[in-house]
Amino acid sequence: MAPSAIPTQDVDLTAANIQVKEATQPTKPSSNGTTPAPLDASKLIYNLTKDPRPVPGEEVANASDQTICTDHMLTATWSASEGWGAPEIKPYGPLSLMPTASVLHYATECFEGLKAYRGYDGKLRVFRPDCNCARMHMSAGRISLPLFEPAELEKLIIALLGVDGPRWLPKNEPGRYLYIRPTLIGTQSQLGVQAPREALLYIIVTYMPRLDSPPGGMRLHTSPEDMVRAWVGGFGYAKVGANYGPSLAATSEARTRGYHQILWLYGKDGECTEAGASNFFVVWKRRDGKTELITAPLDDKLILDGVTRRSILELARERLSDELEVTERKYTIDEVIEADAEGRLVESFAAGTAYFVCPVSAIHHRGKDINIPMGPEGTPNVITSKIKTWVGDIMYGNVDHPWGVVIPERE
Amino acid sequence: MAPSAIPTQDVDLTAANIQVKEATQPTKPSSNGTTPAPLDASKLIYNLTKDPRPVPGEEVANASDQTICTDHMLTATWSASEGWGAPEIKPYGPLSLMPTASVLHYATECFEGLKAYRGYDGKLRVFRPDCNCARMHMSAGRISLPLFEPAELEKLIIALLGVDGPRWLPKNEPGRYLYIRPTLIGTQSQLGVQAPREALLYIIVTYMPRLDSPPGGMRLHTSPEDMVRAWVGGFGYAKVGANYGPSLAATSEARTRGYHQILWLYGKDGECTEAGASNFFVVWKRRDGKTELITAPLDDKLILDGVTRRSILELARERLSDELEVTERKYTIDEVIEADAEGRLVESFAAGTAYFVCPVSAIHHRGKDINIPMGPEGTPNVITSKIKTWVGDIMYGNVDHPWGVVIPERE
Repeated sequence: MAPSAIPTQDVDLTAANIQVKEATQPTKPSSNGTTPAPLDASKLIYNLTKDPRPVPGEEVANASDQTICTDHMLTATWSASEGWGAPEIKPYGPLSLMPTASVLHYATECFEGLKAYRGYDGKLRVFRPDCNCARMHMSAGRISLPLFEPAELEKLIIALLGVDGPRWLPKNEPGRYLYIRPTLIGTQSQLGVQAPREALLYIIVTYMPRLDSPPGGMRLHTSPEDMVRAWVGGFGYAKVGANYGPSLAATSEARTRGYHQILWLYGKDGECTEAGASNFFVVWKRRDGKTELITAPLDDKLILDGVTRRSILELARERLSDELEVTERKYTIDEVIEADAEGRLVESFAAGTAYFVCPVSAIHHRGKDINIPMGPEGTPNVITSKIKTWVGDIMYGNVDHPWGVVIPERE
Repeated sequence: MAPSAIPTQDVDLTAANIQVKEATQPTKPSSNGTTPAPLDASKLIYNLTKDPRPVPGEEVANASDQTICTDHMLTATWSASEGWGAPEIKPYGPLSLMPTASVLHYATECFEGLKAYRGYDGKLRVFRPDCNCARMHMSAGRISLPLFEPAELEKLIIALLGVDGPRWLPKNEPGRYLYIRPTLIGTQSQLGVQAPREALLYIIVTYMPRLDSPPGGMRLHTSPEDMVRAWVGGFGYAKVGANYGPSLAATSEARTRGYHQILWLYGKDGECTEAGASNFFVVWKRRDGKTELITAPLDDKLILDGVTRRSILELARERLSDELEVTERKYTIDEVIEADAEGRLVESFAAGTAYFVCPVSAIHHRGKDINIPMGPEGTPNVITSKIKTWVGDIMYGNVDHPWGVVIPERE
């Protein structure tokens, strides 16, 4: 068959092209001819609680095996025919789902995680929420959930924080934070294996105890030789539930052995990818004598494009270029072991929203222990400390920076 | 380091060993020293509806975009400290879940699908429910959900069908069926990425319109070159939600192009694995002149160990050994294309609980159309027909066979 005789569609069915098609089609035309409504933050309805709950202290929050949420949540329903309904801020409470709901069977779910920080200047900030909202849009497309304009999601997050921020993050307690979890789930009551035609977006704000690095640093165990977290052609780059549940068995087992997280290796050479659900960084001296900050690349879509990861790379390139080179490339556990054996390992850390910038003190790999230099008395080492301070200063308003977005609060 | 100095734990952290550990530990010892209760069908509580709903006709069921369920569902809660609560049969209705529930974020969910058949002898049967219950036990372990004795789950399925079978599958309408969906979800209200310490098992029974093969046979489109359904070291063999949501984008796209399902290929050679969510079979003449029924193997854990697949292989080996060889091995799309070019393609079908045994008439692969012989007027071809008849005869009680388990009905 001559190439010209190949129908265009044949060369088109690729993941990349499906994604482009999704991304450029924020509201799919409905079968009934009407245009479904886009997500619209200007339609937001406030239905505030008359019965606000007491804000727990850290001890209470630490002792609970349930996540404590603030007084309100934001919800917006979607259907294929009508599009997005008006978003609503309402009292926090349970969701009612039919037992046949798509999300409970087919993992049609994606989420984001970001924090709101009470600054040392008394202001409330979120860190680069545009990045999270753009990523949630991408994740939604990958898992066949409805799309939306990322900027509208950002407005909704800010509106919800404006309501619950003042009471749950008091101005006189700078340095505290709340964790925000935008979530999108397929709600259609339909067991057919198909993209759901009904969905629910919700945003909850949770009160987290101050989660600091484990004393003495994070200890990692490399992943089981016969277990893979994500794979080329899969969905490791998307924040979808399907990346998390299947990883829990290995993590539980690592914890019973005294490790905090799994360092997920990929491929027969054991490329270092993610540490638990965080991005993973190593600082080492190369054999040419140059110091290097290295982390796995995004190009094969194995790992999450972390907002903290991206910010660290940008700041390090801007501020540390005199002392080190910043590299995104594949590197293997054997390279880390060699660097350790040759005394070239400088430091290592995991980075993500939940654990922020967390020094790694040890990696266990098939009978070998790699010990990684820490600062004095279990503190983060020099480079890790610098990076943690720089990012933290933006989050808590110690410096003025466009990444720290100030939230207008309803008093 | 001498081999003897390697601590035992180092060689132990493998997926295979985690699975063995899970499987041999049906009730994990609780941290408070008590032994959590096992799942126990003898504790079943009946709380029957006083308001049974009308049983819809096929037209109503076909027209609805919601799955229609029977009058009752069965639920059993689990917590890490208490174990399994008493199972309860109660009126079908919505579930109440906290927005922080594990299943909504981390895809801590698995399920099964099986059918109840109203036989031509008036009896109600399920087909090899022991296989489904054993598989659900395996899936639960893989996704860090609580374990149970598979035989107890089977008793619960039978009890629920005993209640709703008589009215929803009337004795005077042989040949009809209901679809049963046992589901297990992580319900703990906890955003920490960890195995849930609370879960809910539920069983629902759905009224499905008679789902027959698409007229003219099923048309498959091979998967996007840059998209992979499951991978070695992953969880393609488990019936967990995480295998389904990520596959919907490619399936939707194939449907808009006029195909019914994706034929998922694996690896650089394009091994044929599954067709949609069904197992995939080809009958061809080998170059040595022998006829062969071929399907992908289970050993690399890429595909689901389908109950229909297994039954077909067993029956074909028992009854067709004079006319063909039954083979489970890796085979590629190029082998199928070659067989087509050389006129050696005999027939092909997809097999699973939902679509039963469904003839495949066409496969589209990167600009090439493979047309597969069907029977006259779009009916299944000879081998496909034989197999379909044999399995169907067991399901509907036309023959007496240990795979057809009769359900005692409450009249």
